Amino acid sequence: MTGVRSFASDNNAGVHPRILEAIAAVNVGHERAYGDDPHTARAVTAVRRLLGADVPVFFVFGGTGANVLGLRSAAESYHAVICPDTAHIHVDECGAPERHVGCKLLAVPTSDGKLRPNDIRPLLKGFGNPHHAQPRVIAVSQATELGTAYRPDELRALGDLARRHGMVLHMDGARIGNAAVGLGLDVAELTTRAGVDILTLGGTKNGLLGAEAVVFFRPELAERFLYLRKQEMQLASKMRFLACQFEALYGTDLWRENAAHANRLARLLADLVAGVPGVELTQPVEANAVFARIPTHAVAPLQGRSFFYVWDEETSVVRWMASFDTTEEDVRSFAAAVREVVTAG
Amino acid sequence: MTGVRSFASDNNAGVHPRILEAIAAVNVGHERAYGDDPHTARAVTAVRRLLGADVPVFFVFGGTGANVLGLRSAAESYHAVICPDTAHIHVDECGAPERHVGCKLLAVPTSDGKLRPNDIRPLLKGFGNPHHAQPRVIAVSQATELGTAYRPDELRALGDLARRHGMVLHMDGARIGNAAVGLGLDVAELTTRAGVDILTLGGTKNGLLGAEAVVFFRPELAERFLYLRKQEMQLASKMRFLACQFEALYGTDLWRENAAHANRLARLLADLVAGVPGVELTQPVEANAVFARIPTHAVAPLQGRSFFYVWDEETSVVRWMASFDTTEEDVRSFAAAVREVVTAG
Amino acid sequence: MTGVRSFASDNNAGVHPRILEAIAAVNVGHERAYGDDPHTARAVTAVRRLLGADVPVFFVFGGTGANVLGLRSAAESYHAVICPDTAHIHVDECGAPERHVGCKLLAVPTSDGKLRPNDIRPLLKGFGNPHHAQPRVIAVSQATELGTAYRPDELRALGDLARRHGMVLHMDGARIGNAAVGLGLDVAELTTRAGVDILTLGGTKNGLLGAEAVVFFRPELAERFLYLRKQEMQLASKMRFLACQFEALYGTDLWRENAAHANRLARLLADLVAGVPGVELTQPVEANAVFARIPTHAVAPLQGRSFFYVWDEETSVVRWMASFDTTEEDVRSFAAAVREVVTAG
Amino acid sequence: MTGVRSFASDNNAGVHPRILEAIAAVNVGHERAYGDDPHTARAVTAVRRLLGADVPVFFVFGGTGANVLGLRSAAESYHAVICPDTAHIHVDECGAPERHVGCKLLAVPTSDGKLRPNDIRPLLKGFGNPHHAQPRVIAVSQATELGTAYRPDELRALGDLARRHGMVLHMDGARIGNAAVGLGLDVAELTTRAGVDILTLGGTKNGLLGAEAVVFFRPELAERFLYLRKQEMQLASKMRFLACQFEALYGTDLWRENAAHANRLARLLADLVAGVPGVELTQPVEANAVFARIPTHAVAPLQGRSFFYVWDEETSVVRWMASFDTTEEDVRSFAAAVREVVTAG
Repeated sequence: MTGVRSFASDNNAGVHPRILEAIAAVNVGHERAYGDDPHTARAVTAVRRLLGADVPVFFVFGGTGANVLGLRSAAESYHAVICPDTAHIHVDECGAPERHVGCKLLAVPTSDGKLRPNDIRPLLKGFGNPHHAQPRVIAVSQATELGTAYRPDELRALGDLARRHGMVLHMDGARIGNAAVGLGLDVAELTTRAGVDILTLGGTKNGLLGAEAVVFFRPELAERFLYLRKQEMQLASKMRFLACQFEALYGTDLWRENAAHANRLARLLADLVAGVPGVELTQPVEANAVFARIPTHAVAPLQGRSFFYVWDEETSVVRWMASFDTTEEDVRSFAAAVREVVTAG
Repeated sequence: MTGVRSFASDNNAGVHPRILEAIAAVNVGHERAYGDDPHTARAVTAVRRLLGADVPVFFVFGGTGANVLGLRSAAESYHAVICPDTAHIHVDECGAPERHVGCKLLAVPTSDGKLRPNDIRPLLKGFGNPHHAQPRVIAVSQATELGTAYRPDELRALGDLARRHGMVLHMDGARIGNAAVGLGLDVAELTTRAGVDILTLGGTKNGLLGAEAVVFFRPELAERFLYLRKQEMQLASKMRFLACQFEALYGTDLWRENAAHANRLARLLADLVAGVPGVELTQPVEANAVFARIPTHAVAPLQGRSFFYVWDEETSVVRWMASFDTTEEDVRSFAAAVREVVTAG
Repeated sequence: MTGVRSFASDNNAGVHPRILEAIAAVNVGHERAYGDDPHTARAVTAVRRLLGADVPVFFVFGGTGANVLGLRSAAESYHAVICPDTAHIHVDECGAPERHVGCKLLAVPTSDGKLRPNDIRPLLKGFGNPHHAQPRVIAVSQATELGTAYRPDELRALGDLARRHGMVLHMDGARIGNAAVGLGLDVAELTTRAGVDILTLGGTKNGLLGAEAVVFFRPELAERFLYLRKQEMQLASKMRFLACQFEALYGTDLWRENAAHANRLARLLADLVAGVPGVELTQPVEANAVFARIPTHAVAPLQGRSFFYVWDEETSVVRWMASFDTTEEDVRSFAAAVREVVTAG
Repeated sequence: MTGVRSFASDNNAGVHPRILEAIAAVNVGHERAYGDDPHTARAVTAVRRLLGADVPVFFVFGGTGANVLGLRSAAESYHAVICPDTAHIHVDECGAPERHVGCKLLAVPTSDGKLRPNDIRPLLKGFGNPHHAQPRVIAVSQATELGTAYRPDELRALGDLARRHGMVLHMDGARIGNAAVGLGLDVAELTTRAGVDILTLGGTKNGLLGAEAVVFFRPELAERFLYLRKQEMQLASKMRFLACQFEALYGTDLWRENAAHANRLARLLADLVAGVPGVELTQPVEANAVFARIPTHAVAPLQGRSFFYVWDEETSVVRWMASFDTTEEDVRSFAAAVREVVTAG
């Protein structure tokens, strides 16, 4: 049903009107291509302010590109990346990290999408042994793919562990706005001040047309980035039109408004279905996703009302995702449908 | 000088207003991400009509991505790609084809950016010998990086040569609209009916915000494309906003209007400076680029008036590029400056 | 202690005298390089006879090269390889499969190094979804890295599962001779007649100076092999000196004699230490390896007597490996040392 | 004609008897695998003495592996390697450098296989521009693939040029012994004291069974080598059998004897055919190769007498290669055949 809002994905939402306005506003005359323009400079400044850090910031086309470029900047082909087995880099990027970095991914099972030091320690071995891929990156998603969020101290513990072993902490922040709002924190508290070394600063899932940023809190890791971005085919020629989206999102409170809206409606949906017999929330709702176990019989009929993805066929766990443009009416209507379909089973 | 139109690059131009309108028009509600939406389907249809061929069409972020994905679809790592030594894939993509395909590029000197069978034949050897990279792709740019254009019979000769050796003909059509208009032909006459196997159908240089397409005239070469596009980080999540640009450009005559405009002004600039003593046009003006040898002393002062790139430092050849938004006044003013600065030397 | 036999690794053993004789025997005059010689042809014939199959056979330098080339012949970069988490390709090749194939490895925990259909089935999903690495290879080691061996019906079950999903069964047979002898079977019963699609036929660990073979039971997978072997730097110029080793090993019963000898002494060692209080055998001894849990205090003193590797620091499990040249005296002497050191603790 | 000596290639020759003796001599008991053994240490010492430099030395399986690993140690994927268009790395390695380094090869035409600063300077541009592969390596072969040799001052000029641009000088020394003997110099004068940064120190073409070494005159370039060698599948498990060949070759004068012998017979062959009407030597004979233009009609009949390769079909230039085991009788007999066949045409 084209054009109809659903709970399928925040990628299915469109572009926030203020982003389209920002694009139109920079569409004046010529600018040097590839980022050597004042709009891009302003967007970099906006991101640095957000993060409270005068660090290298680069814009790229998409989330997989941002993640892969971040990893490639830190890791050689003989390195290993440790991540949760739900990580986007492990399950949703068609093997791009292995392909482009050449490295090994060591995927760790978790209950809630969050990596903890105890999950990682058993893998921290073989250092100096050329037969073994060398552990080099601890990779987290914030918010996680399960809609949970790391607290700053949890991140710091991972960052400390990384540094003690000469490793780096990488954060896929495709939904970092949702995590920050969910925790009532600023983005800097979850990144700059939490020991993150490399950040994918997300945009597309929070209302942009399409743009992500890669941020290096250890500037030496960015030294090769200009070449890597071009060679990895993530350098936009008309860069101002990517950069301006970031300025509009993070140079104002738009990121926070969009994320807060989506989070609030996810929370509402969770609250409304929590009491439905046969529905079980399987994860805390700390961002804009609701994970619920629903009866198998209810899946198809509910998808017919409003499409969404089954997260795990075996356990009948589904994912419902709120977006910046989800309405309270969308939520109430869908929650009613859940109640109706599930209890009718 | 931010916002000021120049002759530096058609990448420096902004977005045609009708493209921004098209983007706004599809920004309604939710759509399935990653291209499974009706806007993308319509854009594919528009491209197929343009080409008069019911062939696989895929949208990607940028030109390097499109070229690399086309080559990767046709070539194994032990293959060789034969191209002019001016080819974008050879000099402007930071080695991306070698990196992503793993293949060898064999770059041939030409006088005008056009590859001819006699340039290629000496390289067609070593077939079946595992010590030698196997010739597999003949790669041309249309229009060329020197502003020239292949006639259909020239392309057919290359395509025939390719097929006789089990090779494929790849076309980087970043400026195919300019070539078609320059030759007074339809795009199909330069592609579908000229023996091209894989096409990068350009958009960004002809007024889009940012989108290119990869087209396979031999559908079997596209079988792996869905995986390759994702893994090579060229799959847009909010695909409708790329696709709609293509529909607006190629589903109407906008591509032709934009290209015709840019070509006409390049032609005008060439005509106006041709008579200036000390200025020598070094290439026929068959698209939207003017290549001229100017006195060394004139370069910096002229760049101060309106920025452009020196193409060859040694021979003092410069490139002036017209865009969809170049005005006749821009041209006349710049041509006057050329006359003034060159003759003042 | 240079030159002293130990139980550290069958890679630490030297070259069987009959192999050195074979090398000397082919060292007569000139031969075409790179395998186009009669010695190589004879070695291919010997392998085909061993396997009872007229299939493509190629010689390469080493085991990692053989495994990687086999995988690369079957898998694209967007594919996934499913293997036990003890697999040589996963833990002992420094990430070479990811680097050279570009693929993802999905490593499954097992108790005994053997993959079973139930371990694999949960991973057989996402087919056709371009976001997910596509399951393509089931990879086993025979004998396993834990000294256990797959029965033919166990292999057939994996092969059937593979074929039902358009996948291939790859076998790292670095110690296939030990497995065959351990099971009292011919090599063909564990490969040709057990549904294996691609085989690394081991040599170095069974008394060769250095050579492995890659065998394709589905010949179409070998079509690109000549180019891949050269490009992956596994093509020996003086090939006759690799091939003659294979002829000497597999064209006679030498492979069986060497493997039987090593297996028998591993069995003897296991029997002798089994009764020592504080020593626990942790795996069945089905090839030439003994895995035992010994008291932590015993490790260093015993390594001082005769070096060996700790397999798992946490559980104090060690590996003792017999070779073609291990003597009964070596075993009895070492077993006595185990008894002495362990009981002295 | 199996076993019959020819002038086809020094790769077609067998193994020098003293090398087989060395292999047998180290075949005593067990040694730690992968190079952690005293034989390997002694071979490293022998190479360091040869070079008069206490530098990192590593043994690998073959020449392509050595070259690729040397390049990979110095170059990132966005780098370019400048080499003659006759270079082994460009024409004889099936694109392995592009595949494994990811880099671009810029192949320069030369008359004699030797790169000169003036060939290179036009390519030293685009530094710092992320659209262009960054020049990083100047790669020479010593002796060249055309049987010529660089003088020390020629090498120093290239090394100086490299260093002035932050580049490195790589030498493919597959036939460095022949070059040194041809010039009456020590190997160190052509490497350590001539500004070479990375060296493939050849062995196989000079009488070994199969082994090459990679040497780093700038030790910091070797920091990643242990991992790269393993991951690039060039780490021999039974390393002592590779290393001992190097000790036997370079720890004694065997390298010089073998090279001097081959060079002398190439020289003799050149002298004997130089006077034959219709035969024209096309390159100076400075190592163990003779390049000659002979009448087309003579090629096949002469190949029937003793096989050799046509170097250039178009110009009817052939290559005759002498080996350590070529005899004076072989040369006189073949020279007589040349005279007979050519003059009979």
